[in-house]
Amino acid sequence: MPLVRFDLIKGRSPDQLAKLLDHAHRALVESFRIPESDRYQVVTEHEPIHVVALDTGLGFQRTKDLVVVQVVSRPRSMMEKTAFYSSLAKALEDKCGVSPSDLIISVVENTDADWSFGKGEAQFLTGSLAGVKNEDAIEGPHFGARQHRG
Amino acid sequence: MPLVRFDLIKGRSPDQLAKLLDHAHRALVESFRIPESDRYQVVTEHEPIHVVALDTGLGFQRTKDLVVVQVVSRPRSMMEKTAFYSSLAKALEDKCGVSPSDLIISVVENTDADWSFGKGEAQFLTGSLAGVKNEDAIEGPHFGARQHRG
Amino acid sequence: MPLVRFDLIKGRSPDQLAKLLDHAHRALVESFRIPESDRYQVVTEHEPIHVVALDTGLGFQRTKDLVVVQVVSRPRSMMEKTAFYSSLAKALEDKCGVSPSDLIISVVENTDADWSFGKGEAQFLTGSLAGVKNEDAIEGPHFGARQHRG
Repeated sequence: MPLVRFDLIKGRSPDQLAKLLDHAHRALVESFRIPESDRYQVVTEHEPIHVVALDTGLGFQRTKDLVVVQVVSRPRSMMEKTAFYSSLAKALEDKCGVSPSDLIISVVENTDADWSFGKGEAQFLTGSLAGVKNEDAIEGPHFGARQHRG
Repeated sequence: MPLVRFDLIKGRSPDQLAKLLDHAHRALVESFRIPESDRYQVVTEHEPIHVVALDTGLGFQRTKDLVVVQVVSRPRSMMEKTAFYSSLAKALEDKCGVSPSDLIISVVENTDADWSFGKGEAQFLTGSLAGVKNEDAIEGPHFGARQHRG
Repeated sequence: MPLVRFDLIKGRSPDQLAKLLDHAHRALVESFRIPESDRYQVVTEHEPIHVVALDTGLGFQRTKDLVVVQVVSRPRSMMEKTAFYSSLAKALEDKCGVSPSDLIISVVENTDADWSFGKGEAQFLTGSLAGVKNEDAIEGPHFGARQHRG
């Protein structure tokens, strides 16, 4: 369910992009304990002049590899969020060569009533998604069916 | 006031797009009972590789007609939200040929102080919008002035 | 820390765009009392048919200069927000020739745990950003280091 927006600078190949999205999703699945198929990602690739990212005085050097991630999700614990941040930074560095200094993440929370995944129904309210509670997901059937594209 | 983002896969004609936006707005007007002129829509059309939408195990088949809708609005009741979801799904299917399985909706709420519609004023705070409360809107003068482009 | 999205109609030169972003950031720095380097801006330039902005009956005439601004921020007071709206409208009119009728702003709030500015850390939680509290920022060292591109 999290809806995840990626704002990037143009320049990645389709393969590089697919890999980045795959690893970003895996970090989310593991940190938020959601089903593998709970994947909703939207990417926009920008001209360099369309993205300005300084560092709030933290001493980060930003490059053209910059990854700005915006997550909209039902409420998550502080632990889930910080696990996601570190896990995403590590994954993008290890698997995609993105420096941890190039990763900016912002989360916005909403509620069960704020989602419809199809057919005009609010699946968190109707009970259709009763089987994919956070605590169940990691051991659930969806997890085993994890798919890879990269 | 709701600000509505549409993330689509490239491929619609300008006419198809205008029609989709018109019907999406009509669903919002009727479900949230807002004035017809309370219309703020931003569309981004993406390459297919820029949007990944699985189904959270719900069994939906997504196609290139996929419509991802993100609504930012002052608080809405559960009833208003679910009315919007079903009304939008029906409108897009009946009028635009979009399968209800291709519609993903996410809502984020904010407050009266979080909006300025022009001139640098917060119109919900200044009283400029006192006449467009939800409960009045549907019978109000704006409703009769509904405009159509499609 | 605010992450600010700008949705514009295509047509501005790179210089005009850079100037708009600079002045928008200055308005934010002064209104929210954030450090100058607390700058995170993402722009998307759209075809005219991709943006529909009416006026909620307020009598505004929108033009191709339209600026839709979406701010995600930690909680801000009503006074900070309204100061930002009027300051941004004035800046864009005085410095960029954008009519105040062409400025639409929407704010969404989140919390300290919802931000990571780099290295996969949640800097508002770890204390790395203890020095950039709002009340300190305007007199802080970052302010003097303000940079200009336009």
